[in-house]
Amino acid sequence: MIGIFDSGIGGMTVARAVEQLLPNYPLLYLGDIARTPYGCKSARTIIEYSINNTRFLLENGAKLIIIACNTASSVATDRLRQEFNVPIIEVISPAVEQAIVCSQKGRIGIIGTRATIRSGVYETKILAQQPEYMVFSTACPLLVPLVEEGWIAKRETKMILRRYLHSLKERQIDTLVLGCTHYPLLKHLIQPRIGRKVTLIDSSVAVAEYLQNYLAGQTVLTPDGSHDPTRNRYFVTDITESTQFIAAKIFHRPIDLQPI
Amino acid sequence: MIGIFDSGIGGMTVARAVEQLLPNYPLLYLGDIARTPYGCKSARTIIEYSINNTRFLLENGAKLIIIACNTASSVATDRLRQEFNVPIIEVISPAVEQAIVCSQKGRIGIIGTRATIRSGVYETKILAQQPEYMVFSTACPLLVPLVEEGWIAKRETKMILRRYLHSLKERQIDTLVLGCTHYPLLKHLIQPRIGRKVTLIDSSVAVAEYLQNYLAGQTVLTPDGSHDPTRNRYFVTDITESTQFIAAKIFHRPIDLQPI
Repeated sequence: MIGIFDSGIGGMTVARAVEQLLPNYPLLYLGDIARTPYGCKSARTIIEYSINNTRFLLENGAKLIIIACNTASSVATDRLRQEFNVPIIEVISPAVEQAIVCSQKGRIGIIGTRATIRSGVYETKILAQQPEYMVFSTACPLLVPLVEEGWIAKRETKMILRRYLHSLKERQIDTLVLGCTHYPLLKHLIQPRIGRKVTLIDSSVAVAEYLQNYLAGQTVLTPDGSHDPTRNRYFVTDITESTQFIAAKIFHRPIDLQPI
Repeated sequence: MIGIFDSGIGGMTVARAVEQLLPNYPLLYLGDIARTPYGCKSARTIIEYSINNTRFLLENGAKLIIIACNTASSVATDRLRQEFNVPIIEVISPAVEQAIVCSQKGRIGIIGTRATIRSGVYETKILAQQPEYMVFSTACPLLVPLVEEGWIAKRETKMILRRYLHSLKERQIDTLVLGCTHYPLLKHLIQPRIGRKVTLIDSSVAVAEYLQNYLAGQTVLTPDGSHDPTRNRYFVTDITESTQFIAAKIFHRPIDLQPI
């Protein structure tokens, strides 16, 4: 079973991408809504929460963990790999690989939460492979609350996006990494504001494709031809109305969220 | 010692008001930043966190608890009073008293987080005393993240406020309760948008005045003439840069935040 955790519901964009690409692998999701968001918290706190989440997924049968949260991927991956003896897949590297392949001029923009941007993980990973590339980063802390409020078409959201994207546009980036699992829900607003020619890298799709390649090369997890994705289980540490609303929006179907 | 807790740093507006009005009472603050915000979480989760916070303050010497968070006051007060045998003061009732006294036409507006507004606590308390009053409420979930980002003068914040306040303005309220401890930091933007004639009720000032009256009528807590407010202790469950920034903004001095 594939275990996926996130600080909340944003990571469901990853679960959705995995479900679509690999429908025959049973999936277990944990959204830590009771302690969401992680993006404005310290590394120490994020690591502690990530260990709790991983432990829960393993106890419930997961054999492989996806950290479907850029913030937790940025600061907790190394620690989780030390602590747990299962494959740990994070969302940063797959997005970095795709960004490097897509970028024509070697000018890559990164948007993410404050914790993700502060960690510098995207720059480090891109420059380790392509030292001549230019990487420009901007923290966009208000986008998560805007998405969670469902303000995905409001004028204020567009203005805030324009403000956040302004410096990246000036730097003439050719590729933009959506470094937070909430951001794919704003893709339709980001693309016209950053420019039609800029390639957007959706980390949820990137990690699902990475997982597909990974699974092809191993034998621990095997597909189950009779598995039905609607049987995948979605656990949450807290439940509110907007949780249900956004989950249904991401999956295009009602999702039975189980509180723990 | 007076113990004050909040879901984060907003409650420091209460601590500041108490410190100014009652400088001779030692004060202990706990900001649960690691699990902030409470406003979008379920009642069950908020009650659990409030019990943890109260226990911490009592173990560290508090003899009286102020719930400096409208969300926790709305949903956890009764439970805390059952659980703990010390005076528990919440921020709702003092603001309700002031609103009733100030209102000329009996048309009161309430703004707060989603959890506070959903609880209906302000309406219930106002109408219990003044059944002929009209109370109009609006949830303003984006204001807390905007304040926490320090966007307290930005155009987008003004637009979002105008959107949130629109229906209250149409209802011709004469008094507006700032039902969240973050909102006093936006007072200068709220007043011109809701109208100069509308009285704003700042729940942090209201609770400090209520506490002053309460202390005058009891003997458990006594003032310490030699106490210096800069010796008050401020604990937080997590610490980030913006925490320090906003704390200093509220107190007009640097605050030594102690992580626990």
